[in-house]
Amino acid sequence: MNNHWITNQAIRARWLDEAERLKPALHSEAVSPVHEARFVDDAAAFQGWRAAAGCSLVDLASRELSEGDSVDLDFGTHLVGSLEISLEAATRGVDAPVRLHVLLGEMPIEIAAPREPFHSNMLARTWLQEETVHLDDVPGTVALARRFAFRFVRISVTGLSRQHRVRIASVIARTSGAVIEPVAPPAGLTHKLAAIDAVAVRTLRNCLHTVFEDGPKRDRRLWLGDLRLQALANAVTFRRFDVVKRCLLLFAGLARPDGLVEACVFEKPQPLPSNNLMADYALLFVPTLLDYAVESGDWETGRELWPVARHQVATITGALDAAGKLPAGDPFGWTFMDWQPKLHREGAFLGLAIYVLREAAKLAAKVEDDEALSGFTARAETLSRIAHEQWRDAAGNFISGPQAQRSLATTAWMILAGVVQDAEARAVLHPALNDPAYLQPAGPYLWHHVVHAFHLAGDRATGLHLMEQYWGKMLDLGADTFWEVFNPADHFASPYENAQLNSYCHAWSCTPSWFLRHPQFK
Amino acid sequence: MNNHWITNQAIRARWLDEAERLKPALHSEAVSPVHEARFVDDAAAFQGWRAAAGCSLVDLASRELSEGDSVDLDFGTHLVGSLEISLEAATRGVDAPVRLHVLLGEMPIEIAAPREPFHSNMLARTWLQEETVHLDDVPGTVALARRFAFRFVRISVTGLSRQHRVRIASVIARTSGAVIEPVAPPAGLTHKLAAIDAVAVRTLRNCLHTVFEDGPKRDRRLWLGDLRLQALANAVTFRRFDVVKRCLLLFAGLARPDGLVEACVFEKPQPLPSNNLMADYALLFVPTLLDYAVESGDWETGRELWPVARHQVATITGALDAAGKLPAGDPFGWTFMDWQPKLHREGAFLGLAIYVLREAAKLAAKVEDDEALSGFTARAETLSRIAHEQWRDAAGNFISGPQAQRSLATTAWMILAGVVQDAEARAVLHPALNDPAYLQPAGPYLWHHVVHAFHLAGDRATGLHLMEQYWGKMLDLGADTFWEVFNPADHFASPYENAQLNSYCHAWSCTPSWFLRHPQFK
Repeated sequence: MNNHWITNQAIRARWLDEAERLKPALHSEAVSPVHEARFVDDAAAFQGWRAAAGCSLVDLASRELSEGDSVDLDFGTHLVGSLEISLEAATRGVDAPVRLHVLLGEMPIEIAAPREPFHSNMLARTWLQEETVHLDDVPGTVALARRFAFRFVRISVTGLSRQHRVRIASVIARTSGAVIEPVAPPAGLTHKLAAIDAVAVRTLRNCLHTVFEDGPKRDRRLWLGDLRLQALANAVTFRRFDVVKRCLLLFAGLARPDGLVEACVFEKPQPLPSNNLMADYALLFVPTLLDYAVESGDWETGRELWPVARHQVATITGALDAAGKLPAGDPFGWTFMDWQPKLHREGAFLGLAIYVLREAAKLAAKVEDDEALSGFTARAETLSRIAHEQWRDAAGNFISGPQAQRSLATTAWMILAGVVQDAEARAVLHPALNDPAYLQPAGPYLWHHVVHAFHLAGDRATGLHLMEQYWGKMLDLGADTFWEVFNPADHFASPYENAQLNSYCHAWSCTPSWFLRHPQFK
Repeated sequence: MNNHWITNQAIRARWLDEAERLKPALHSEAVSPVHEARFVDDAAAFQGWRAAAGCSLVDLASRELSEGDSVDLDFGTHLVGSLEISLEAATRGVDAPVRLHVLLGEMPIEIAAPREPFHSNMLARTWLQEETVHLDDVPGTVALARRFAFRFVRISVTGLSRQHRVRIASVIARTSGAVIEPVAPPAGLTHKLAAIDAVAVRTLRNCLHTVFEDGPKRDRRLWLGDLRLQALANAVTFRRFDVVKRCLLLFAGLARPDGLVEACVFEKPQPLPSNNLMADYALLFVPTLLDYAVESGDWETGRELWPVARHQVATITGALDAAGKLPAGDPFGWTFMDWQPKLHREGAFLGLAIYVLREAAKLAAKVEDDEALSGFTARAETLSRIAHEQWRDAAGNFISGPQAQRSLATTAWMILAGVVQDAEARAVLHPALNDPAYLQPAGPYLWHHVVHAFHLAGDRATGLHLMEQYWGKMLDLGADTFWEVFNPADHFASPYENAQLNSYCHAWSCTPSWFLRHPQFK
């Protein structure tokens, strides 16, 4: 196999240049708040806070604010962009600079709940969206310099001469996102499914900027696992294949010196690797490339990047031992699969490896790489046999780890891998659902794969039902966009031990649109 | 007298339009810090803090900073402008926004001394020069949005992922100020006087922007009393008469509905009255206009604005009673004269009124307003006689108030008014100096008038000696520019009860250059 691209900087540079050329133009709209928000401490509401409607904007503009006062605003839905705040003097001759603290949140909890003492096991406090700005002169307008993701905004007057007061004359959000064409709702959906689709489409849209971001609040970056799911939904909605191509080129151009692709790349100030390797995400470059070529018809790019895809599969699946396990010491980085900390990941990862080998074989066939086609096909069969023989218990359930852990993760991925199919697949999937003996998913990323597994197993009805239950529950709880993390049993669930840091518009939650729109599922 | 201009909005608009047309272009230079600053707690230093030289910029650029770390910088002299800070990553893949707190100070006390708990009897905390900024991506550059006055800067990393570190790659000040020609030092001065002149010239320069500001840190506005002194120094240095004219037009165009000029006008976002009337400052419009016309030769403007000047004199000096006192209730606003709270101001104000009447008579002669000439001359004589008869004690000292308070303020202003002259003036001035029975000045604004009084009384040597003692002491204590407030006996003196809020580049301190350069004093 020709792995010339790995060390050839000219090829890398060409890919990055092409990615730069494909950077989409951004579009902006001015959006006003709908009304004042009054955050009500309400045990029945999601995360304990309900955003009630306060007074009108007209009334708000006449409110006189002294140092220490603040105003909460509700923009009515989830937005991505910046904010412009105009102040007027309520007293003549405001003599000193005015300081405002601006706190922006996707959800009420980010504004209404205390932020002190800050705690997170892994993330920096700077993910809380806040700014401190000064206006030297009143009347005046201050434009926040950064982009935020928000529906709610609290503006607090934290510095003002004692004898003076100001009014907030206007607050305008300047949205930001890639230019997209409006997408018509799919025909024939129930009211509930249509609503789920609309929120899923908005989720995808609000993550679509100069790359497909994982979440516009956090961490606003291009992750391979997220990109793969976004690209699926994109193909049946905005069809911005140019952005998908740009993202694939960024991963390829920024691959590590050993040719493995990073789990995440940084786009700004210029494309940079993130120094973050994940075995599952590296492999998922393959189906992302295949899906891109199939949906866009751009087989030229499929061919161009095939060596990158092939290298991931060959390297990582080639390293699996006779038991279908990766070598110790994470030579290919960590494995994600789901946020569930208790998940024993080896079984699910083996399913993913087989799934990727089969996708790689399809791609090899298309680009006429016969050696890879036969090699990957044979390897998939070998691993599938191993899965059959070594990763099931006596009852036929897929298991992982010394405790023979059963989980929806392992089960779903074995079905995506085609290790079991049809009636046999349904026979292992159904008992896995809602059975306390099976570890359930911790978030939408894995729920996507479970829903997909039901579709593949020929039980679309259960797939849609799960979607109504899980994504529909977010909707019932007030989601304007779908979330990074959602545990119906624990509204404060957060892999960061701080629900204020969760992203509430998260790419990997956008796939209901794919299931509801793609012809393969009709 | 024709006071048509007071109600004629077309005239006002024409003046404001002309002021706008005269707005000077601003000039910018990039300035780097000289080295790191190390603030040393040193009882012998001004305000207890000495700025020692820390490491070089080269060494600083290699220092790795974690959350909680900070760096102090010294730009070597007083600057006005903004700041650009560039960060580099010291670790790969800085994943979260970086938050910096930037604190800027003209003096070490603003950086090194605690700012909490904040206290001031009158000013807002927002005069402390600080910003909180975020960089979403590292490497990256953040430019502070506002203009500051500073020599010292503390940059603190207040938000950063725990596992990451950054370096400060560069810090650049972008200065801002009206375009001025370099000014040659006057010939034949002692080393000390030449140094005083240089710092005075820098003080004037750093206050010269789109108007003559009182101080570029605080409150960055056009005040009449400051303008008058700046215009004196400007005439013998930068000769930006266009800016003086602009300032006069702003005061005239923004005069109150009763025709009195404000003590201060706001320039931004558009010219606005400040709602601040001061009897002494309103009167000082007159000598400011006269000096402008004399020095620039622009008698057309002298004539144009003469009705404004005349109205101030006629209204305010016309209201003085038979004892030379203003009516009760401050109908013409408050009277400043000096920051000294114990000063009984009536005597000094009477001197100022007579001084202004005499200046108004000179202006009236030039613009051929015979009625005003004779009226103001007669009024000056009347008030001068009152001063002689009612404002001196048996020993001939000028006094004010029920306690027969003696002060340098009253004495100096009576001499500026010509109430006593030559040997008689020297006879009252000399005993007033450093005599605890005489209230001494609290700041440079009044010290200017004392030095001027010595010059007028024919004792230039003492005037220069005072300058060497007072302004020279600031120099010895490290002044890069002269201060708003300086009490040699109390380094923490502050009319705001907080020396961190004092302005340390203040226009009214710039007149040593006038005394050292103007031909009338040779």
